Amino acid sequence: MARSDVDVCSIVFFFFILHCAASHQRHSVHKPCKRLIFYFHDIIYDGTNAQNATATLVGAPQGANLTKLTGNNHFGDLAVFDDPITLDNNLHSPPVGRAQGMYFYDKKEFYTAWLGFSFVLNSTNYLGTLNFIGADPLLQTTRDISVVGGTGDFFMARGVATISTDAYEGEVYFRLKVNIKLYECY
Amino acid sequence: MARSDVDVCSIVFFFFILHCAASHQRHSVHKPCKRLIFYFHDIIYDGTNAQNATATLVGAPQGANLTKLTGNNHFGDLAVFDDPITLDNNLHSPPVGRAQGMYFYDKKEFYTAWLGFSFVLNSTNYLGTLNFIGADPLLQTTRDISVVGGTGDFFMARGVATISTDAYEGEVYFRLKVNIKLYECY
Amino acid sequence: MARSDVDVCSIVFFFFILHCAASHQRHSVHKPCKRLIFYFHDIIYDGTNAQNATATLVGAPQGANLTKLTGNNHFGDLAVFDDPITLDNNLHSPPVGRAQGMYFYDKKEFYTAWLGFSFVLNSTNYLGTLNFIGADPLLQTTRDISVVGGTGDFFMARGVATISTDAYEGEVYFRLKVNIKLYECY
Repeated sequence: MARSDVDVCSIVFFFFILHCAASHQRHSVHKPCKRLIFYFHDIIYDGTNAQNATATLVGAPQGANLTKLTGNNHFGDLAVFDDPITLDNNLHSPPVGRAQGMYFYDKKEFYTAWLGFSFVLNSTNYLGTLNFIGADPLLQTTRDISVVGGTGDFFMARGVATISTDAYEGEVYFRLKVNIKLYECY
Repeated sequence: MARSDVDVCSIVFFFFILHCAASHQRHSVHKPCKRLIFYFHDIIYDGTNAQNATATLVGAPQGANLTKLTGNNHFGDLAVFDDPITLDNNLHSPPVGRAQGMYFYDKKEFYTAWLGFSFVLNSTNYLGTLNFIGADPLLQTTRDISVVGGTGDFFMARGVATISTDAYEGEVYFRLKVNIKLYECY
Repeated sequence: MARSDVDVCSIVFFFFILHCAASHQRHSVHKPCKRLIFYFHDIIYDGTNAQNATATLVGAPQGANLTKLTGNNHFGDLAVFDDPITLDNNLHSPPVGRAQGMYFYDKKEFYTAWLGFSFVLNSTNYLGTLNFIGADPLLQTTRDISVVGGTGDFFMARGVATISTDAYEGEVYFRLKVNIKLYECY
């Protein structure tokens, strides 16, 4: 049995190493288990566009009103939104779901915002939700936020979403492109 | 040694497969490592109930006030809350903790909200916190949101919470049932 | 071959146990894969300090204004902030990044708040973001919140952050110490 014992030991050791290596590989490879690209469209209420608006200011600093973004790079403006999500950059494409949540501008010196929202997807391809939070330094071409959870088809998902401002019109409309890379899929 | 080498190889291969299978099983089985059911009770301030209220509006769109939910399905109303958590559906049962956070209504066409909150549990059974975010489409019987983290007895927890409106009275009181399923337990 | 079969079986069983044990060890050891300590500095706008303020109230309950924290333990006050992060407790140390997000006070009976924010780090040592949410019961010496995600150098991070009020001056300035322990590092 002696040789067998040695075998077992070395195999144990071998698998122990293998197990450790495998555990760490899961982390270092950084290959998404799922990729998705969506666009969402935000039309902010300005006092005149109640029919089309998908977002409204609900908070603002002292002295500001809720139909006009503040000066100071919109510092202190807080909006809640329910925006259509599309597969391409056309506002009028059939929506595959809604982006629902909030953003607020948190800096006086230049534009930067913070986002907390969900994608509620309801299409032939996907039924479920993805939940996001993160800082949105608007002046950078791309910004990374966290996908912190998901439900339905995105059960327990985690990942990183790279967002970019695909277009904007004055202070009423902007369109975000969201490049979602999930690294934990169940 | 030839046969032994073959054995080792096949065993390596076997365990490699086993390891891969096990890794994926962790994801596909979808069996919670912990289940919990709680109720929480929200009494929103309406200008007359300061003694009992556990929530108050702190944001609303232009033209609205903070003691009355807006028309338009409460679109734009933002509330912060500190609600008692109970083990059954009785508001007067001894609370086992507090649900603390915010919700806001984000759609004009029908009721839907967004939630960001924590369960701060402090009972003989549980001491710790669970943190939640997610969309809350109130018109659906059940809604899934994400458990994105935890502390104390819920250290590093992740999961899905299925919420349902257990009862409501006018526009002042509602009770949510929260069915928590954790899939990552430390 | 009989003995070999037995060997394989017992080894399979052995590794199965080993695998299970290892899987659970990953959870039970609770040793951070990364530790970080930072301070951040919040100067709330009070109507007179626009030059220095790093935070402003943007929401408050009925009857309150946005340049003065409410009575009732600030119940209902909602602030957004963009605070400098330093490596030591000196407000005037060179910042290594910005803490950006919001907090609100959610209880009438005593001080307690809720936090949703990001660390946007931009120094020689770290480039990336960490995202946090959680309850902040201010009267406790230390409070644990969740690190729910990260990007850049903190790609996909998860963990627990222990926060403590390091200092405060009246109702205008407070400094939080944040002891970050990551338990999932990629």
